[in-house]
Amino acid sequence: MCQLLGMNCNVPTDICFSFTGFQARGGGTDVHRDGWGIAFFEGKGVRLFLDPQPSCQSPVAELVRRYPIHSLNVIAHIRKATQGPVGLENTHPFIRELWGRYWIFAHNGNLVDYSPALDGSCVPVGQTDSERAFCHLLQTLRRRFPDGAPPPEDLREALDDFAAVTRRFGPFNFMLSNGDCLFVHRSTDLHYIVRRAPFAVAHLKDEDVSVDFSEVTTPDDRVALVATLPLTDNEVWTPLPVDRVVMFSHGERRAG
Amino acid sequence: MCQLLGMNCNVPTDICFSFTGFQARGGGTDVHRDGWGIAFFEGKGVRLFLDPQPSCQSPVAELVRRYPIHSLNVIAHIRKATQGPVGLENTHPFIRELWGRYWIFAHNGNLVDYSPALDGSCVPVGQTDSERAFCHLLQTLRRRFPDGAPPPEDLREALDDFAAVTRRFGPFNFMLSNGDCLFVHRSTDLHYIVRRAPFAVAHLKDEDVSVDFSEVTTPDDRVALVATLPLTDNEVWTPLPVDRVVMFSHGERRAG
Repeated sequence: MCQLLGMNCNVPTDICFSFTGFQARGGGTDVHRDGWGIAFFEGKGVRLFLDPQPSCQSPVAELVRRYPIHSLNVIAHIRKATQGPVGLENTHPFIRELWGRYWIFAHNGNLVDYSPALDGSCVPVGQTDSERAFCHLLQTLRRRFPDGAPPPEDLREALDDFAAVTRRFGPFNFMLSNGDCLFVHRSTDLHYIVRRAPFAVAHLKDEDVSVDFSEVTTPDDRVALVATLPLTDNEVWTPLPVDRVVMFSHGERRAG
Repeated sequence: MCQLLGMNCNVPTDICFSFTGFQARGGGTDVHRDGWGIAFFEGKGVRLFLDPQPSCQSPVAELVRRYPIHSLNVIAHIRKATQGPVGLENTHPFIRELWGRYWIFAHNGNLVDYSPALDGSCVPVGQTDSERAFCHLLQTLRRRFPDGAPPPEDLREALDDFAAVTRRFGPFNFMLSNGDCLFVHRSTDLHYIVRRAPFAVAHLKDEDVSVDFSEVTTPDDRVALVATLPLTDNEVWTPLPVDRVVMFSHGERRAG
C-alpha cells in the first residue's frame, strides 16, 4: 500500500512543512520505497515531479522540500508497489487532460482482477491497477457529461457512483483534482484537518520539525490537508467517512 | 520566438552539458525570459519540469543542470511569449497521452489566425497557438491510424502531411517524441549534430564550459542533438532541411 497527501487552500500556499514529514515516510520512517510524486496546480497549469527513487533519497524531493511552490491544490503520493514494476511510468500521480483541464490522480490500494473496458479515449501507459482506474474514471466522466465539465457537485456525485463500482475490486483510497477542487475517497485510511485562524504551532510526527503558522499566514487563510495518516502529533485530524467521495474547495470540506 | 533543444540517443545519456548552454539563453545570453521546460523520457514514463520563470534564474533549472537524468529522448524549450500570457499552462513542452504512450511537443514559431476544428479528444488547457497545434496533431494522428500506433516511418509521413498544412499559418519549428523517436520540423532555424566515436572535446558557445566526451562515453554511444542554434563553437552543426519532418532514432538521423 502507499501513502497519499493532498492539500486544498483558499490562497496559494506552499506545502514544504507537510511534505517534509511525508517525504520521510518514503523509505525513512516508513517502507514506501518504490517511488514518489507530487503535483502542484498553478492556475490551470500543473507542475508534476515524479521520481522512481525513494523520496527520502531523492534530489527532486529535496528541491520540492526547499523550494516553496505556492498552489491551491496539491496531490502527493509515495509508493509501495503492489501491481506493476517500479518505474517512472508506474509512479503516481498520473496526469491526463479532459475538457481542456489537467486532471491529477493518485491511488492507495489494490484493485484485484481489475480490467475495465476502455474505449481508447484514455489508455494506460504503465501496468498499475491505479492508472487503469484513472483512465476508466475519465472515460466515465466524458460519457456522463458529453457537453463538457459539469458543476463540482455533479462531478462529486459522478465520482461517488464510479467509486461504488470500482471499490468492489479492492481498497480504493484516491485523490483527484482538476485545479479547482480536491476530491478524495476513503476505503481504508484517510484523515484531514482544516487549518484556519487562530493559527498555532504544529509539530511533525516523522521529523522533529515545528512551524508556527500564525507567523506565515493571514487571518483569512484556510488550508485543508488530507493524508493517509496524520502528519502532526499536536493537532486533531479527523478520519474521513468510508466509501464516500468528499470534495474540498477553497480550503474547506464542502460536500460528501 | 523561442528556442528548442532535443536529444535522441542509443543509450541513456544525460543532457547536463547541453542544458547548461541552453539554460543561459533563457534570460542570460538571450531574451527568452518567459518560462522554460524540459521533458525526459525514461522508458515509457516522462519527467516533465516546467517553470514560468526565466531558466537562468530557476531553481528547477539548477536541479536539471546538476542532477544527471539519463534518457533516450529529451525535449526542452525556452519561451519568448508571442501568443498566450506568461504562465504555467502556456509553458512548453506540452504532454498528452495517445495509444497508451505519452507524447511531448514543443514549438518555436507563431501560427497566425490559427483555430483548427477540434473534436474534443484533445483540448488545449492554455491559450497558445502551439498547444492548439499539438491537440490538432494528436487528433489527426488518432483519426488517420484508428487501429493504433503505426510504424515510425508511417508516423513521420503523417507528420509531414500535418506540417505542410499547419505551416501555412506561420513558422512551425517543432519537436515531438513518444519516447521511441524524436521528430523535428524546421521552418526557420534548426541545426543538428550526431556525436559518435571518436569523441572529442566540445566547448559551449554560451558559457565557458567544456567537456571531453571521450571520458564519459563508450565507443558504441551515439547522441543526436537538435537545437534552434548551435550550442557549441568548436563542432560542426548541420542545418536541417526546411519544411520536412526528420526522424531521429537510436541517435541517428533515419528519415526525412
